[in-house]
Amino acid sequence: MSELDIKYIIDTFFALFSMVLIIFMVPGFAMLEAGLVRTKNVSSVLTVNTMIYAVASIMFLLVGYTIAFGSWENTSMSIWAAFLFQMAFVGKTVNIMSGGVSERVRIIPLMFFTVIMGGFIYPFIVNISWGADVLADTFLDINMYDLAGSTVIHSTGGWALLAAIMIMGPRRGRYKDGKIHVVPASNIPLVVLGAMLLWIGWFGFNGGSVGSISSVENADTVAKTIMNTNTAGLAGAIIAGIIMYFRYKLLDITMILNGALGGLVAITAGPDLYDMYTPILIGAIGGALVVFAVPVFDKFELDDPVGALSVHLVNGIWGTLAVGLFVSEKVKALHEITFFGQLKGVAVVAIFVFTVSYTVLFVINKVVKFRADDEAQIEGLDVQEVGVEAYPEFKRAI
Amino acid sequence: MSELDIKYIIDTFFALFSMVLIIFMVPGFAMLEAGLVRTKNVSSVLTVNTMIYAVASIMFLLVGYTIAFGSWENTSMSIWAAFLFQMAFVGKTVNIMSGGVSERVRIIPLMFFTVIMGGFIYPFIVNISWGADVLADTFLDINMYDLAGSTVIHSTGGWALLAAIMIMGPRRGRYKDGKIHVVPASNIPLVVLGAMLLWIGWFGFNGGSVGSISSVENADTVAKTIMNTNTAGLAGAIIAGIIMYFRYKLLDITMILNGALGGLVAITAGPDLYDMYTPILIGAIGGALVVFAVPVFDKFELDDPVGALSVHLVNGIWGTLAVGLFVSEKVKALHEITFFGQLKGVAVVAIFVFTVSYTVLFVINKVVKFRADDEAQIEGLDVQEVGVEAYPEFKRAI
Amino acid sequence: MSELDIKYIIDTFFALFSMVLIIFMVPGFAMLEAGLVRTKNVSSVLTVNTMIYAVASIMFLLVGYTIAFGSWENTSMSIWAAFLFQMAFVGKTVNIMSGGVSERVRIIPLMFFTVIMGGFIYPFIVNISWGADVLADTFLDINMYDLAGSTVIHSTGGWALLAAIMIMGPRRGRYKDGKIHVVPASNIPLVVLGAMLLWIGWFGFNGGSVGSISSVENADTVAKTIMNTNTAGLAGAIIAGIIMYFRYKLLDITMILNGALGGLVAITAGPDLYDMYTPILIGAIGGALVVFAVPVFDKFELDDPVGALSVHLVNGIWGTLAVGLFVSEKVKALHEITFFGQLKGVAVVAIFVFTVSYTVLFVINKVVKFRADDEAQIEGLDVQEVGVEAYPEFKRAI
Repeated sequence: MSELDIKYIIDTFFALFSMVLIIFMVPGFAMLEAGLVRTKNVSSVLTVNTMIYAVASIMFLLVGYTIAFGSWENTSMSIWAAFLFQMAFVGKTVNIMSGGVSERVRIIPLMFFTVIMGGFIYPFIVNISWGADVLADTFLDINMYDLAGSTVIHSTGGWALLAAIMIMGPRRGRYKDGKIHVVPASNIPLVVLGAMLLWIGWFGFNGGSVGSISSVENADTVAKTIMNTNTAGLAGAIIAGIIMYFRYKLLDITMILNGALGGLVAITAGPDLYDMYTPILIGAIGGALVVFAVPVFDKFELDDPVGALSVHLVNGIWGTLAVGLFVSEKVKALHEITFFGQLKGVAVVAIFVFTVSYTVLFVINKVVKFRADDEAQIEGLDVQEVGVEAYPEFKRAI
Repeated sequence: MSELDIKYIIDTFFALFSMVLIIFMVPGFAMLEAGLVRTKNVSSVLTVNTMIYAVASIMFLLVGYTIAFGSWENTSMSIWAAFLFQMAFVGKTVNIMSGGVSERVRIIPLMFFTVIMGGFIYPFIVNISWGADVLADTFLDINMYDLAGSTVIHSTGGWALLAAIMIMGPRRGRYKDGKIHVVPASNIPLVVLGAMLLWIGWFGFNGGSVGSISSVENADTVAKTIMNTNTAGLAGAIIAGIIMYFRYKLLDITMILNGALGGLVAITAGPDLYDMYTPILIGAIGGALVVFAVPVFDKFELDDPVGALSVHLVNGIWGTLAVGLFVSEKVKALHEITFFGQLKGVAVVAIFVFTVSYTVLFVINKVVKFRADDEAQIEGLDVQEVGVEAYPEFKRAI
Repeated sequence: MSELDIKYIIDTFFALFSMVLIIFMVPGFAMLEAGLVRTKNVSSVLTVNTMIYAVASIMFLLVGYTIAFGSWENTSMSIWAAFLFQMAFVGKTVNIMSGGVSERVRIIPLMFFTVIMGGFIYPFIVNISWGADVLADTFLDINMYDLAGSTVIHSTGGWALLAAIMIMGPRRGRYKDGKIHVVPASNIPLVVLGAMLLWIGWFGFNGGSVGSISSVENADTVAKTIMNTNTAGLAGAIIAGIIMYFRYKLLDITMILNGALGGLVAITAGPDLYDMYTPILIGAIGGALVVFAVPVFDKFELDDPVGALSVHLVNGIWGTLAVGLFVSEKVKALHEITFFGQLKGVAVVAIFVFTVSYTVLFVINKVVKFRADDEAQIEGLDVQEVGVEAYPEFKRAI
């Protein structure tokens, strides 16, 4: 075997390993969101998560990958492994969006949107950031450093979610007479399980995004990337816990987990670029942003049952800008990173994704209403959308 | 290090990676089945799953591996890794069977059957298909192509299940006056989690069955195998969703997941042989077969609470035959695949497994009754078999 | 690439693979313990598990790794991968301890202890066993063989737990008038899921502890280690099942799982040293020890809701001594293993960890009480510590 053959084999294996970790995010998101909503909407949320994985992935296979990368070719690893790794990402953007409109979104129109998002919108964003780069010679060309998608994945999902919330409105009865009706999560063990599966998936997401482990330098970069990713998650959890304790003398586990996820989103743009201590800062700010952003969105009556705007949108932006602020000058020079470049990337993605998503959602909504009517929301979406109750044998207390 | 050494190391690592993914199917089956049965039988189902893994695996270590492969030798990777990979399969055949007789099967006789199945029946099937091949020079010699076990694993489990259902009968009150009493699943998040863990495990099951990743060609084959496996699962889920929607305007999540599993079973015979689009067809037919087979088995009063006959038996057969139908002529010629060869493989395994399983189950049943008596079924098997209720603090609504 | 480069790459990849498996033990412990306690304490247990991972890991990054290994250097694999692998261990010792004081421990003082345990106590134990070895030239120098931590991890956690139970006392109402009030586990599927994730994590724990897979010999050792680890778990489960059946005619699933975990703890000191059959014996004795130890601790009113003393402390000791008893003379000579060396290791760790933990816990307890008051215990810790109920919608039967 030649040296290139050995690299090809090892990098194919490594891409498959990373892809498998990312696929754990499918049950991760499903369990997290199923735990955060009320029992009457649990089957619906689970169906949404399952179908998004199926529909978005098959659209990416049929058209998305070609839009993103132009051709099915690869010389450094098996093209099939490269595809699988990229495919593992696509559903995540829709998951981020679907989670935030839980408890009132109907499944069929959401599937139409998934077709567009998985087949076209997300692939286009990949094209201009990691892929074939159709905008290369235009003034919209972006030179953002975004290793694993603080912007490409998380903001993208976040902007689509913002558009979706604006079109679908809040859950029935959530905001009444200026007051916020608190809706407690129905199953905390599922929330914890889901968040932890996401955390583990992130190792594959960010580590795999290095693209190769088959040189000493790349092996170091992959390991450093996973270490820094984890550190930011740790810091996000701790800071969220500290803030909650000082405010309420309570360690709200859902906020701690969202803090961890916020830290993980924030580090995702540049986990390979920082020294081993900076991720503590990036992640801590990320975790704090989640805690402070949640009530702000509620103030604007942007009803987001799982906190996805705070976790993914706010921290997607923060993490991308953080690369322009906290990476050492030497490393910035090496990768031609500027704060302006990061900001421009954030802005171009924001404008494109928000505008297109809003338009697509608006059009679909004219044909098939996204919002479940009041009766369905009161009865629970499971009865009307899925026909299967999540926990039929357990007597309800509320 | 020589090239052979490098291959040995990488293939050992890859076999361990694959084996670990398959082991995730142990909680996968356990959660899926625990979610599908009523709360009063959940601990029993979980005990069965745990004990099957323990008993079948240790029987495979003590006698099964030797029956299957003749000797503990291996030159292309560590024999211990080769053993672990094969051992990870054995419990699955019994899991398939035990799931379908849930809610009335008693654990102790089932353990006796597990000893025979894990130690002898399954190892014999492996012997004649992937192993030492004792029937090589007889007219029963089979030349079936079955990469990862559509027949060797899934039909095998399915035929044993059919025999078991015939001996144990349906659950008490399931069929009454020609009507089917519907028994709703008790915990949908567990069903989803379980199915997704199975899906992930399948990547190791099928990918690892290529047997080596340590050449450029093999790396491509492994990645292609995992990609095609996944694609068939996606297609199975989507088609099941579409059928359910057009029939009932409902997206029944348990049927969608069984559709995905059906697609995964169907692709398992030849995921390495198809181009990237054919698995969509194989998986879609697989998913559709599940939807249509479920009521057929009920018509014959073959009571199968988890749909295992439809998922594993029907699709095990379909997937094996599909290799004879949809693989390109060129690839068929390369591997000496004929439709008749596939059919003969299916038939030999069917006759052997069904006959032997039926006989063994019949004999055990004479000594220790498999079927829990009516009182135990009404009270729930957990009280009489396990002594531990699954959810003692939750008040029952039904 | 030189041969050393290839080894560096493969061993870095393998350490990351192992580390990821170990991280699955974080949800593993969380689900296991959440399933074993009453619903009113579930959120609290989950918060504890999440925060332990965060706090212990960051302490290990900031000070622990340096205390344990002296310097951040490594030539055989990426130092970041080496760190991550070691970091994955640290939270486990505190998890073991926290599980056993569930349902009465308050979170804030526990976090103070986690800082000390993760930053100092555990790193010191690693230092004298696997690390920089400050006691090398003193009479306290230990030459214990403990591949993956029967003593270094499990007894360490167990001794800390014993100290904690002595300081915090039993749960309110657990022992009354010489009688034991039985507290049933609230969610058996979570117990099973958690135990199985732990089991899978163990493959990374023990397999990864070989330290390298990049030679033919090491690849064999890693695979053998994982195989023997698994075998001991199988045997532990089976023996616990058999004992429970012969005693009560019931297959108590929680005891079966604790039997499996006991077997896994017991094999952890020397899974690489045994032939393929001896782990059956080691694991079976481990499983039996759990069954017999549980009532003994209750007799002494050492209240341990999850059986952690029996699983981790008793079997940590047993497994370490077993290396001195059941490893072949030839292998013992090769590694300079003596029964006395094993015993001394057990004793030194016992004395150090128990004394220091007791002192630290005692001091913290003077500042912030560990024990939740009676009112909090009756109401449930979730209300007073976390502010989030685990299952708010389910009506309680008890």
